[in-house]
Amino acid sequence: MRAAILSVGDELVLGEALDTNSQWIAHELLDRGVDTVEHRTVGDDRAAIAHCAVVLAAQVDLLFITGGLGPTQDDLTREALGDVMNPGEPLHDLAPRSAQLIANTHGTAPGLRTRLGGCEIASLPGPPREMRPMFGLVIDEMLAKQSSNTDLGTASINACGIGESHAAGLIEPLMRRQANPHVGTTVSGAIVRARVRARGESALAALPSLLTMIESAWEPWAFGRGEVTLPLALGSLLRARGESFATAESCTAGSCGALATEVAGSSAWFKGGIIAYSNEVKQSCLGVTKEILAQHGAVSAQVATAMACGVAERLGTAWGVSITGIAGPAGGTATKPVGTVFIGVHGSSQRVRHIRIRGDRELVRQKSALLALQSLRLELIGRGATPLQGEVGIP
Amino acid sequence: MRAAILSVGDELVLGEALDTNSQWIAHELLDRGVDTVEHRTVGDDRAAIAHCAVVLAAQVDLLFITGGLGPTQDDLTREALGDVMNPGEPLHDLAPRSAQLIANTHGTAPGLRTRLGGCEIASLPGPPREMRPMFGLVIDEMLAKQSSNTDLGTASINACGIGESHAAGLIEPLMRRQANPHVGTTVSGAIVRARVRARGESALAALPSLLTMIESAWEPWAFGRGEVTLPLALGSLLRARGESFATAESCTAGSCGALATEVAGSSAWFKGGIIAYSNEVKQSCLGVTKEILAQHGAVSAQVATAMACGVAERLGTAWGVSITGIAGPAGGTATKPVGTVFIGVHGSSQRVRHIRIRGDRELVRQKSALLALQSLRLELIGRGATPLQGEVGIP
Repeated sequence: MRAAILSVGDELVLGEALDTNSQWIAHELLDRGVDTVEHRTVGDDRAAIAHCAVVLAAQVDLLFITGGLGPTQDDLTREALGDVMNPGEPLHDLAPRSAQLIANTHGTAPGLRTRLGGCEIASLPGPPREMRPMFGLVIDEMLAKQSSNTDLGTASINACGIGESHAAGLIEPLMRRQANPHVGTTVSGAIVRARVRARGESALAALPSLLTMIESAWEPWAFGRGEVTLPLALGSLLRARGESFATAESCTAGSCGALATEVAGSSAWFKGGIIAYSNEVKQSCLGVTKEILAQHGAVSAQVATAMACGVAERLGTAWGVSITGIAGPAGGTATKPVGTVFIGVHGSSQRVRHIRIRGDRELVRQKSALLALQSLRLELIGRGATPLQGEVGIP
Repeated sequence: MRAAILSVGDELVLGEALDTNSQWIAHELLDRGVDTVEHRTVGDDRAAIAHCAVVLAAQVDLLFITGGLGPTQDDLTREALGDVMNPGEPLHDLAPRSAQLIANTHGTAPGLRTRLGGCEIASLPGPPREMRPMFGLVIDEMLAKQSSNTDLGTASINACGIGESHAAGLIEPLMRRQANPHVGTTVSGAIVRARVRARGESALAALPSLLTMIESAWEPWAFGRGEVTLPLALGSLLRARGESFATAESCTAGSCGALATEVAGSSAWFKGGIIAYSNEVKQSCLGVTKEILAQHGAVSAQVATAMACGVAERLGTAWGVSITGIAGPAGGTATKPVGTVFIGVHGSSQRVRHIRIRGDRELVRQKSALLALQSLRLELIGRGATPLQGEVGIP
């Protein structure tokens, strides 16, 4: 089965906003055995939308259109689909006559479902938060209306704190280009992922053992499969032990707490934290002494240790995790350049890590938060001595 | 002048990687007065690349192709361009006969420059680190070869805490479809943006007064133009007053602190905060009393008020900002459904807001953080009585 994706919006075609919908949809389709053969982006231009819809629908089995469904005058996807489906007729109740509305569970603008020739069409809202659940509502029905069923299985293994080259090297024999199952790696920030696709009965049968091999090769950095995030994996470990943790953050200023609590139900194992952006707060709320700050500087192994210990004591948790670093762009020195981060873990075992993270302010902060959670996870599984990507010796 | 962008790569069309090149190029072109009218993405498919190159070149003055120039067997852009330019002829020195090589200053694969009909074509490498400098090498020459010079100006106004329909309604007379300057709105989470494009001398002359009109209409929700983010706008106000603030966060668990500190130099006006995810931390670190918690519940105006006051006192800042709410998916009740959020501001003026946010856990948290910063900003400009989107009366 083949699909195409059409994104609509002046802001997209002119480069004022980045389209992430096309990738997301293509990825979802791939997981369901559907190959996407083309993405297109056009502006809020009724004729261009109609033209692309006709051309693409003639080539594929499934067409997804995103954007242009909003309430304003420059949202023209409905009108364009009307020009294609029922030319000359006015829209009825926001839709061309031969289209059905799709309820929007996360917003106001409904979507549209229709069929043109042999192609199933779904027109979805542009905001990802509205588009994604609506895609979930319609995809099964669209696939069911098209016949073929390819025996396709996909899976992924997620890891944190290992570089992509290192990770790929560890599974190189499994990564041949035309192999089936096929193994590829992707990286996003501090998360490396192995994606596996198997097509046909014998490849599907080989999938489970292949996944186990990748997990063994990536042990202990691998933390889960598929939709399992690092906070989710960490939460399961803490929940099983009946323990909780708290965060003491300087340069990340809350990112690590926010990350941990992306998981619903995280209150069972995350109690809170101290954002100690200034040295005064490090002293008053975490008990870091003026002497340690003066002697070693706020970005140091000693301060990270004191922060982790301080937050666990003051919030009464089994574990404390701390982050202090230089996110940049300013503040770097010859011995502590931008990207220097210290991560402390305090609990039934203790650890402090000195890491150099390459990247801009945003990336340094985002990676720091993930590596801090991975540091705690490694302590919990008794593998705290494992080095993380970019780790250097404590000076 | 009109442009199109063609991205090539199986990993892109199948959704295994996100294409950022098209947006980057379109944005660079926009800055040079060139409108991009279409993006396309196809896989590593020689016929598809050739077909798209021909179709797009017939419609635009400039065509940029990215990807498919690497050394491996599935890199086919050179061959496809050969099929278009010099069908049947072998490639000479990696290029079709009528194309020129472009040096790659940041990698190994050279690019290609050629012309098809009236269209200037540049074929650039896929990796952004190689593509961007190569774009810089060729763009001036490509623009020079095409004649026209369109006087194009673009600008945007950013606002927070107002719904898109409401915002669009306030500037409706300015949003006529074919108007020049043209005004459109976009929304992303709690941020609404007006985008203005002016073409030609008289429209450009009208741009400044038009922007002022939009800002007046969106006052006081509008916080800045162009790249000005809400944290940046808030930071400027605080810096001018020589004041700082601290956060007390429950459901957002650090997101608001992380958001504020996206701005480099934020340590001048942000000192830190307390992540009080559990009621124990609300008591021990913020001084919220057991009685208030028992009587009103953790998600209440009273607790928000106590949290904002507590964090300002304990961290010694002029202002305290608090967030307590039900991010979901669980925890909602009939009187306090998922999405119920209380935001407190404590300083030289006090405020507590009761807001209902539609959306999933992630959106509720993200919008809460933005609305909390906007609440503080409104107090600082003396407009604290302004309602925010979704605000309901304090029960």
